[in-house]
Amino acid sequence: MVTSEMWNEKKGACLRSFDEKEAVDSVNGALALRPQIEAIIDKIWDEGFDGIYFIGIGGTYASSMQVEVYMRGRSVLPVYVENAAEFLTTGNKRFTNKSVVILSSVSGNTKEMVELVDRVHEIGGRVFSFIDTPGSVLTQPDKQDYLVVYPKNEQLKFYMVANYLMYKNGEFAEYERYNKEMEAHLAQVLADVEKQSDAWAYDYAERCVAQAHEHPDLPRYYIGSGNQWGATYSYAMCYWEEQMWIRTKSITCQEFFHGMQEIIVWDTPVTLFMGEDEQRPLAERVARFLPKVCGNYTIIDTKEFALEGISPEFRGTISHLVMHGVNNRVDAYMELFLRHPLSIRRYYRQFEY
Amino acid sequence: MVTSEMWNEKKGACLRSFDEKEAVDSVNGALALRPQIEAIIDKIWDEGFDGIYFIGIGGTYASSMQVEVYMRGRSVLPVYVENAAEFLTTGNKRFTNKSVVILSSVSGNTKEMVELVDRVHEIGGRVFSFIDTPGSVLTQPDKQDYLVVYPKNEQLKFYMVANYLMYKNGEFAEYERYNKEMEAHLAQVLADVEKQSDAWAYDYAERCVAQAHEHPDLPRYYIGSGNQWGATYSYAMCYWEEQMWIRTKSITCQEFFHGMQEIIVWDTPVTLFMGEDEQRPLAERVARFLPKVCGNYTIIDTKEFALEGISPEFRGTISHLVMHGVNNRVDAYMELFLRHPLSIRRYYRQFEY
Repeated sequence: MVTSEMWNEKKGACLRSFDEKEAVDSVNGALALRPQIEAIIDKIWDEGFDGIYFIGIGGTYASSMQVEVYMRGRSVLPVYVENAAEFLTTGNKRFTNKSVVILSSVSGNTKEMVELVDRVHEIGGRVFSFIDTPGSVLTQPDKQDYLVVYPKNEQLKFYMVANYLMYKNGEFAEYERYNKEMEAHLAQVLADVEKQSDAWAYDYAERCVAQAHEHPDLPRYYIGSGNQWGATYSYAMCYWEEQMWIRTKSITCQEFFHGMQEIIVWDTPVTLFMGEDEQRPLAERVARFLPKVCGNYTIIDTKEFALEGISPEFRGTISHLVMHGVNNRVDAYMELFLRHPLSIRRYYRQFEY
Repeated sequence: MVTSEMWNEKKGACLRSFDEKEAVDSVNGALALRPQIEAIIDKIWDEGFDGIYFIGIGGTYASSMQVEVYMRGRSVLPVYVENAAEFLTTGNKRFTNKSVVILSSVSGNTKEMVELVDRVHEIGGRVFSFIDTPGSVLTQPDKQDYLVVYPKNEQLKFYMVANYLMYKNGEFAEYERYNKEMEAHLAQVLADVEKQSDAWAYDYAERCVAQAHEHPDLPRYYIGSGNQWGATYSYAMCYWEEQMWIRTKSITCQEFFHGMQEIIVWDTPVTLFMGEDEQRPLAERVARFLPKVCGNYTIIDTKEFALEGISPEFRGTISHLVMHGVNNRVDAYMELFLRHPLSIRRYYRQFEY
């Protein structure tokens, strides 16, 4: 006999859509790309460059913003972030045949990214690509100059590039110790984050879905800065809007105080992402402000996770990965409670536009 | 006898809150700053610089983004955009005692901007400030190195800086002709834009207020790219959210297609800002897409204005000013119909946070 199952019928979390071994193996596999990444960077370094441009669109643009802000405060290397569609229209006069693009693509055939590679090659620049899908367009010999094919972990791959660049430039003395720690602990730490946040994520998703049913028009607000900004921006847009069809708005902590704060009232659903990098004080200011005007806010703070084996001084460098772990859990229960498979799209790649 | 006045009682536009002479004089006064701006840039040029950083927060950050994207496709000069609060936390390792900050402030006492100037001076960098308010903190001798005090026209002032920088760098051969045209026509052109869009703006505002009453939770969506992106971002945040307390979300045209498009349905209120700079094709793509999935969209296209006396090849460089003129008219009627004085704030500068 089949009985009707209400979304809140079976109370309790269950690590839905989580395979610990698979998760751990995936991160360790990415970390094991290090010799390959280092060899490519060594080549780029030897050939020389006048600028390194992380370029993306949508979610990969968000990851590009994360790695740029990570390096901005730490490195004098000429590292920049760009949006692929802007590069294809406005261009960048400082981009030359000595410039290098670093990009990532899951599908390996995103329209703007394919055009971007061709444009870069016309200029004579080089392209270092991380592609998830073997055999896709962007893995072809004429569509990249340096290639790493491995699924998922885009944010981690970009940070691995950043870390080695800074090491080569004499800006990361603890590179060996850092990698030893990450290679020993990161994969398990991130799996632990998912396990530790699972029950909380179940309740949060339940609350979010109830609120979405009650106020279908009302956007959820996501706020975050530093290496959380890319996470905040892409989580709101690429997950809630794109995959769940729920309205959201994202804003940085600092900009929140220059406009958006005015539309927060007692019951506005706000979620603050707090990480542990240099921009944490900006999030702390939001955390002090919110309770004074809002009774429906949520703070997700990476500081609450033990991250066993990770030294305090390195915690900030993985805050975005920790947040991603928490969000993975939320997504799993949103998909369940919404009864909305996250893989379906209304419009994206459904017709020509 | 006093009678109740409904917001839609007196149909018809009336150029509310618009004084043509004042508007024309204001722009001409800004254009007349040119010798003063050129003299300052000459000094900065002679002293040498390794980077010019347009830095702002909130609305001034938006204007900074506009001028950066304007120069990015035209100039090899090392010109960048930064957010003040990010500079104060993450910092920028490439910023040195040979770097120059260009900023603008209406109040002349914005917390983050005052701190920014002090930080820049600690590093040994120089600060070129446009301040609206005489005698304010940021006009003091220890809070700036080069100063222009004149109200309003922030976006125009920044573009005047950009144009002269490019001229000095041999990247703007038509600088004299350009300025002759602008100085002869820009002020009147922008006044004409306000007059020509007034009746339309009245109707648009009426529709927006009716929709806001009917769907108070539903955000209005604003989309724009290129030198319209700063306008789009700040219009949605600094005007609708901050001054009108109406929910909005802004997104660039290119990013719209990587997430946000999925939450657009038949009655979602969407407004597209179309300008005439190099990123216009990105807006055209949105304009092609919207009618297929939405029946409640509005397109504001600067191309529809005559802009008499402005050569076709220069139109794109003032698209953001044209859009600002249209928006001024919308604001005037939103203030009227909402019965919400645009000067009041719920929280901003109302208490400590």
